[in-house]
Amino acid sequence: METIRLGIAGLGRAFSLMLPTFLADARVQLVAACDPRETARAQFEADFDAPAFKDIEALARRPDIDAIYIASPHQFHAAHARIAASHGRHVLVEKPMALSLDECDDMIDACREAKVHLIVGHCHSFDTPYLRTRELIASGAFGDVKMIHALNYTDYLYRPRRPEELRTEEGGGAVFSQAAHQVDIVRMLAGSRATRIRAAVGNWDAARRTEGAYTATLWFENGAFATLSYNGYAHFDSDEWTGWIGEMGQTRSADEYGVARRKLSQVASGEEEARLKAAGTYGGNAYTPASKAPDARRHQHFGPLIVSCERGDLRPMPDGIVVYGDERRERISLEAPAVPRAEVIDELIAAVHGDTAPLHDGIWARGTLEICLAMLRSSAEQRDVLIGGETTNTKEY
Amino acid sequence: METIRLGIAGLGRAFSLMLPTFLADARVQLVAACDPRETARAQFEADFDAPAFKDIEALARRPDIDAIYIASPHQFHAAHARIAASHGRHVLVEKPMALSLDECDDMIDACREAKVHLIVGHCHSFDTPYLRTRELIASGAFGDVKMIHALNYTDYLYRPRRPEELRTEEGGGAVFSQAAHQVDIVRMLAGSRATRIRAAVGNWDAARRTEGAYTATLWFENGAFATLSYNGYAHFDSDEWTGWIGEMGQTRSADEYGVARRKLSQVASGEEEARLKAAGTYGGNAYTPASKAPDARRHQHFGPLIVSCERGDLRPMPDGIVVYGDERRERISLEAPAVPRAEVIDELIAAVHGDTAPLHDGIWARGTLEICLAMLRSSAEQRDVLIGGETTNTKEY
Repeated sequence: METIRLGIAGLGRAFSLMLPTFLADARVQLVAACDPRETARAQFEADFDAPAFKDIEALARRPDIDAIYIASPHQFHAAHARIAASHGRHVLVEKPMALSLDECDDMIDACREAKVHLIVGHCHSFDTPYLRTRELIASGAFGDVKMIHALNYTDYLYRPRRPEELRTEEGGGAVFSQAAHQVDIVRMLAGSRATRIRAAVGNWDAARRTEGAYTATLWFENGAFATLSYNGYAHFDSDEWTGWIGEMGQTRSADEYGVARRKLSQVASGEEEARLKAAGTYGGNAYTPASKAPDARRHQHFGPLIVSCERGDLRPMPDGIVVYGDERRERISLEAPAVPRAEVIDELIAAVHGDTAPLHDGIWARGTLEICLAMLRSSAEQRDVLIGGETTNTKEY
Repeated sequence: METIRLGIAGLGRAFSLMLPTFLADARVQLVAACDPRETARAQFEADFDAPAFKDIEALARRPDIDAIYIASPHQFHAAHARIAASHGRHVLVEKPMALSLDECDDMIDACREAKVHLIVGHCHSFDTPYLRTRELIASGAFGDVKMIHALNYTDYLYRPRRPEELRTEEGGGAVFSQAAHQVDIVRMLAGSRATRIRAAVGNWDAARRTEGAYTATLWFENGAFATLSYNGYAHFDSDEWTGWIGEMGQTRSADEYGVARRKLSQVASGEEEARLKAAGTYGGNAYTPASKAPDARRHQHFGPLIVSCERGDLRPMPDGIVVYGDERRERISLEAPAVPRAEVIDELIAAVHGDTAPLHDGIWARGTLEICLAMLRSSAEQRDVLIGGETTNTKEY
C-alpha cells in the first residue's frame, strides 16, 4: 500500500471536513500542521502526537512531509502554495484555488519549477457519482452532451461565518465558495472547453453583503450549454430532490427545518458569530471530534443535476446514477464509500507515487476560477463574458 | 348564473384540451364551430346539435355568439381574431397569441376598435396554484421577489406533430409553444416589467428541426431575475418533482417510461405522423371522447417552480402551495378543481358580462410573445436582448 505523509496548513473548517477522510484512509499519515490558533495546535499535537507550528514556513521545512494540504483561508492559498513548493512539497490546495488568475498562474509556475504536483480539492467534482457519470458519457453510448441543468438550494449564507467570508473581495460569497463546486462539476461533465458565460448574481441581504445566489448559462465549444443555479438564501432545500441525502452524504430528516436561520437569529454580532464558528471548528470548545469509523454514508454531492445527451439523460445521485435511455430507465447502484472523499487521496497518491497527471490540476482549477470571476463580471457588466485566452480580459475582478 | 355562448374556431388539439372544461362548466354553451376537416364538423354537429362551418366568416356571422374561442393553428390567430372582432365577438385566443408583434398589435387594435375583450389562453398562468402564489406575494408577507427558478423536462418534441409544428417560422417548437407558458407564469409571479433576456436554445434532432429545448435568464425592473429551463427532448421527467401529477392534473405512473419515443419510432413518415395526430384529435377515428364528469384531478401545472422572496420561498404544486418561511414550512392545500381550467371561463365571463379588464389581455400576452421572440434572437445573436419599447428592435424574428 502506497502511503502519503501529509502536512496540514490550516486547521479550520476545511480541515475538519477532510479529517474523517484522513482518519479513515490508512494511506494517510498526518505528520505535522500549522495554524495561528493555539487551541487548534494543542488539539492537533494531542490527537496525532505530531508537531504543530504557528506558520507554514516551519511546517514546510520538515523533511518528513510528502505533501502539504493547504486549507488556510482563501486569500492565503497562493502564498502558502508557493512556500510549500519552494520546499519541494507536493501541494493539495482547497478550492477555490485562489482569488485571481494571477495568483493561479503564480501557483502553477511555482509548482512546475519545483517539479511538484498541484492538486486542487476537495471539490465535489471528485465525488464518485460525477466521475462515473463522466465515464458513461465518455463511453459514447448516449451521444454528445447537449444540455446540463444543475441547481442547489441551501442555507449557505446563514451558517456561521467569519467576517471575511461575507466580503467578496476577500474570497467570500457563493460564487467563490459554491460556484467553485458547481462549475467544476459541469465542466467535467460537458467534456469540452467553456467559451462564454452570462450570469446574474443575487446579493440581497443587507446584513450579509456578499453574493448569496446566482444563476448562469455556460456555453461550451462542443455546442452544449449548461444552466447553473444556486440559492444560498433558500428556504426550500433541494436535498428533497436527492432523497434527503445531504451534501456530505449524510441522511437528513425531512422534518428538520430552518435550523441555520434559527441559530443565527440568536447571535448578536459578527464577532459573536465568528466566535461561534471558531468554537465549532477543530480545537474549539464546541468541536465534535470526527470519528475514525464514519457512519454509513452515501456519496457526497452538490445538488440535483441532469446531463442531457442525444440518446439519454444521466442523473448522478448520492447512491447511484439514474440512466434514462431512449428505451428504458435503469439505476446503476454505487456502493456507499468506505472512506469519504477517498477520491482525493486516490488522485494525490497517483500523482505523488505514480507521477500520474491529476485530473484536478492547477490548469484545470484555474479554468474554474476564471469562470467564477467571469460570472461576477458578467453580472456586474450585464453582458456575456468570453472564457479563455487574452480576449477575455478577466485577469482581475 | 351568467353564461356565455361560445363559437369555436378550430376543432383540433387545443380544442380537445379545452373540451373537458366546456363540457363540465355549466356557464358555457357551445353554439357553433368551424373547422376545415369534415369529420370534425360532423362530430361537433352530432355532439352539440349545433352547426359547424368550413370557415370562420360563417361562424362569426352567427348572431347567437358572445365570444369566439380561436384554437386554429398559431399562424391563423391574427387573421381569425380580426374576423371575430369585426363581427363584434369577444375573442378568447389560444397561446401563443400570434407569431409576431405586428400581428399582436393588429389583434389588439382590432379588438379595441370593435370594443370587444381579447383574452389569451388557456395558458398555465391561469392555473390556480400560480394565481394563489401571486396573491401570497402581493400580500407583502414575504418581502420582494428576488429569484425564480422554473424548469420542465418532458417528451414534448416526440409527441405526434403536424409538419408545421416542427418549423419555427410557422410557430413550431418549444419556444413558441412551451416558453409561452413558462414566461407567462414567471412574469406574473415576478410582478414587475421584464427588462432583458439572455437565452440559449437547443435544436439538436436532425429529424425534427425546431427548438426542443431552451434555457434563459430573465431580468425584471424590480431587480429580480428568473431562470427558465425547458427540455422537450428529455428522458428524465420532471413530473417526478411534482408528485407524479402531470401537466393536465392527472395522476401519472412513475413506472410508465418512454411511451412517446416508443410510439413515434413505429411511425414511418411525417405524413403518417400527421395522420396519427389527426386520428387522435376531435373527429378523428382514434379520438377518445372527453367525459362530462372528468375524473378527480389535481390542478394543472407547468413543471417545478420556486419563487424566492426575501423572507420565504413559495412553491406552487398541483395540490397546494408549499410556503417555506423564515421560521416554518407549511402547506396551503388547494381543493381539486371541480372543472379543469375553470379559471379561463371565470376571466371570460367577468370580461364579457362585468366588463372587468382581463389579467391575460392582449397587451399582457404581447409582452410574453415579445420575450419568446427575444429568446430566439438572444440565442441566435449570442447577446442580451432588451425588452420593451422601440429600443429592442424585436418586431420581427
